[in-house]
Amino acid sequence: MKNELTRVQINVLKRIRPSRGERERLHRVTQQVIAAAQNALASRNLKATVAVIGSAARDTWISGDPDIDIFIGFDTSTSREDLERYGLEIGKEIAVEGFVIGFAEHPYVKARCGGFAIDVVPHYRLENTRQIFSAVDRTPFHQQFVAEHLDARQDEVRLLKQFLKGAGIYGAELRTKGVSGYLCELLVIKFGSFVDVLESVQDWKVGTYISLTSAHARNSFTSPLAVIDPVDTNRNVAAAVSLDSFSIFIDSARSFLESPCIKCFFPQQIPPLDASAFRAIAKKRKTTLFGVKFDLPDLVDDIAYPQLERAHKGILIALLRHGFSALRGDIYYDRGEAVLLFEMLVSQLPAVKRHEGPPVDSKRHANKFKKKYVYNPVVLSGPYIDDGRYVVELRRKYLTLREYLEAEFMNVRSSKAILRAMEKEFQILKDEELLYNDSMRLFLARYFDKTLYNCD
Amino acid sequence: MKNELTRVQINVLKRIRPSRGERERLHRVTQQVIAAAQNALASRNLKATVAVIGSAARDTWISGDPDIDIFIGFDTSTSREDLERYGLEIGKEIAVEGFVIGFAEHPYVKARCGGFAIDVVPHYRLENTRQIFSAVDRTPFHQQFVAEHLDARQDEVRLLKQFLKGAGIYGAELRTKGVSGYLCELLVIKFGSFVDVLESVQDWKVGTYISLTSAHARNSFTSPLAVIDPVDTNRNVAAAVSLDSFSIFIDSARSFLESPCIKCFFPQQIPPLDASAFRAIAKKRKTTLFGVKFDLPDLVDDIAYPQLERAHKGILIALLRHGFSALRGDIYYDRGEAVLLFEMLVSQLPAVKRHEGPPVDSKRHANKFKKKYVYNPVVLSGPYIDDGRYVVELRRKYLTLREYLEAEFMNVRSSKAILRAMEKEFQILKDEELLYNDSMRLFLARYFDKTLYNCD
Repeated sequence: MKNELTRVQINVLKRIRPSRGERERLHRVTQQVIAAAQNALASRNLKATVAVIGSAARDTWISGDPDIDIFIGFDTSTSREDLERYGLEIGKEIAVEGFVIGFAEHPYVKARCGGFAIDVVPHYRLENTRQIFSAVDRTPFHQQFVAEHLDARQDEVRLLKQFLKGAGIYGAELRTKGVSGYLCELLVIKFGSFVDVLESVQDWKVGTYISLTSAHARNSFTSPLAVIDPVDTNRNVAAAVSLDSFSIFIDSARSFLESPCIKCFFPQQIPPLDASAFRAIAKKRKTTLFGVKFDLPDLVDDIAYPQLERAHKGILIALLRHGFSALRGDIYYDRGEAVLLFEMLVSQLPAVKRHEGPPVDSKRHANKFKKKYVYNPVVLSGPYIDDGRYVVELRRKYLTLREYLEAEFMNVRSSKAILRAMEKEFQILKDEELLYNDSMRLFLARYFDKTLYNCD
Repeated sequence: MKNELTRVQINVLKRIRPSRGERERLHRVTQQVIAAAQNALASRNLKATVAVIGSAARDTWISGDPDIDIFIGFDTSTSREDLERYGLEIGKEIAVEGFVIGFAEHPYVKARCGGFAIDVVPHYRLENTRQIFSAVDRTPFHQQFVAEHLDARQDEVRLLKQFLKGAGIYGAELRTKGVSGYLCELLVIKFGSFVDVLESVQDWKVGTYISLTSAHARNSFTSPLAVIDPVDTNRNVAAAVSLDSFSIFIDSARSFLESPCIKCFFPQQIPPLDASAFRAIAKKRKTTLFGVKFDLPDLVDDIAYPQLERAHKGILIALLRHGFSALRGDIYYDRGEAVLLFEMLVSQLPAVKRHEGPPVDSKRHANKFKKKYVYNPVVLSGPYIDDGRYVVELRRKYLTLREYLEAEFMNVRSSKAILRAMEKEFQILKDEELLYNDSMRLFLARYFDKTLYNCD
């Protein structure tokens, strides 16, 4: 078993550890970029530091996937406008192969140089983290802490990152709500090795609290996992980890330790679902799938996902209130195209619904209720009395999800941006209509396959 | 309005007050029956009183429907066996036109004499109601109280009885759970007239407590209406009145006082439902009707109804637990033939159902759950994690009420007699199959028409 564990790790590292050639190429490119940045600063008579930050600099990146951030450190006397302006100017000057503008707390340049993706990030150069202006100002301190404490355990960090990728919970962005690269580094620093991390994780409980130093957080955290940032004790590095990502982490640690397997790191790719496979599944489940499709052309993932989640939940609650029940659903979002998916237990409701009135012995309400419903054409049966109350059976207004949403989507709890988008246009796709492109066919394959990986 | 109220009452009384001829016929027959009973006692050397009791004796019966009870009063020194034996012997001797044996607290003879139905009831002759052996021993005291207090208001009692018949809540038997004849008499004694009773009833609340004397009940009653028996303060004369009968009483009192109308006393007969009318209703409601039909050959109504209600409720709860939901239902029972009716909102469930497991962070339970469901063929999706818990989507065992009940009826909460009957044979009838005879066609017509009568 011990041997198996070692064998698996060695095999995984063969695939994820960058080769000498890749390292040399990366080193060459970063040196060029640093020089270009320094030239750009000098030509503007600007005093600012230039540093490579991120997994590339810490040597914890996974082959083919380095995360190269060029941090331009300005003095705190620089105005915010100047900082943003110079950041963009210098970024564009470095980006000889082209760039796009990304948006975090400020806009920044995402450049391509020598085949690598490089972010050019302006920030304030600070003495300590008590002065923090924005999240990126903290990054150089993270860099320093990891450099001082990781002690040549870079491969352990690589194993952990790839393991979390395999489990689908690597990354703190709001689409994944998983574990960031920095959190992987801290866990290895705290527990020792990749396997030591998993040994600890398998026994975690909701509310686990981890500190790497003697300092403790001054505030309490409500997230399932709290890992106190050693460079800023007010901050929970695991704040983005959702309950489900936390639970998947625990579950996959247990599975892997029970039977170590390379598939945990590189799970099998599911093939996209074709129409005949879809029909076979539909026949087994006898549910009905509805997708509400619309465009959100201008939203980046971290803005779009929380809004899509809110809209999905809002529609689910509204459907439930109208008598429709769903087994579950999911959110598809790909470059501005959104599909809110609902798997309905019942595709069509009966035309009649029960509506309860007041107790018979409360005379005033009783009279009002009877006045309203006696000889009313929406009443199919009643008013009659059941359990001491008036009851009528009314004609139901909407019998399908489609009828309901087409008439009432504006009354669903959702974000303004999504309501605006739906007002412009939305489609309701049913069952096989959802298989309209490869990306959706893959999404639906994963939707139905939804299973925790197991390595035996 | 006042004139309309009077006019309606006069018209109703024309139809329900017995004619002189009917009274004379009744008088003749009761005299013959009393003489026959006295002869039968004399020929056996038995000392017992003979008295006519019930609505016939109190002159509160409705034309065509007298309730003639011949009470044979034995001394308390008589043994219970002798009392029952002599009661049956004398009853059979009176019943020159034939008889059947009825069952209340003891068996008794239901005879036909001169075209009238007569019950021959043996009882103990008591000094006062503190000595009560069984319910019938109390009856002569009721007779005496009504005779002393009704003061020529027999027509008011007739109006109230016919009004309650119109509303479907006359009679204390367990099929109706309504208002007994004696309770009608007490209400008229208490409030004055038929209209005075309704004036009071329209403002009743659940928990109304009425006493005709200064004496109050020693115990508290949980029924919606308590009317203390003036001859026995331990007893609630309205104990049988269900919450729904109580509510219908209030509702119909209000409707009648608002617009007095002869139809309240003699509601229109609904025609039985034919297949084409059924199809029209089904198209409007889009529900599915199921009837569970079986025979209960040996049970009188008062025994059968509570058991049928329990079985109906037991099946409803079991269906709900298995994911089926019903709009409502009803119970049909006619001479030993029972149909439990269920109107289902959904006729067929999807094949998949959600099954929640333990939270991921409770390791022992988590391992057990995963061991059970990983690679289990009943699992359609999962195990996956949702809200920190393991979830699997399982193949549902039963997709229709028919499949469920045919396999599991023995596990439904029900009475032994009904389970035995169903074990012998039961049928599940769906939609139009339920229209198998006139009595069912009428039952279903009433089921769908279920509306409080309104007199305008």
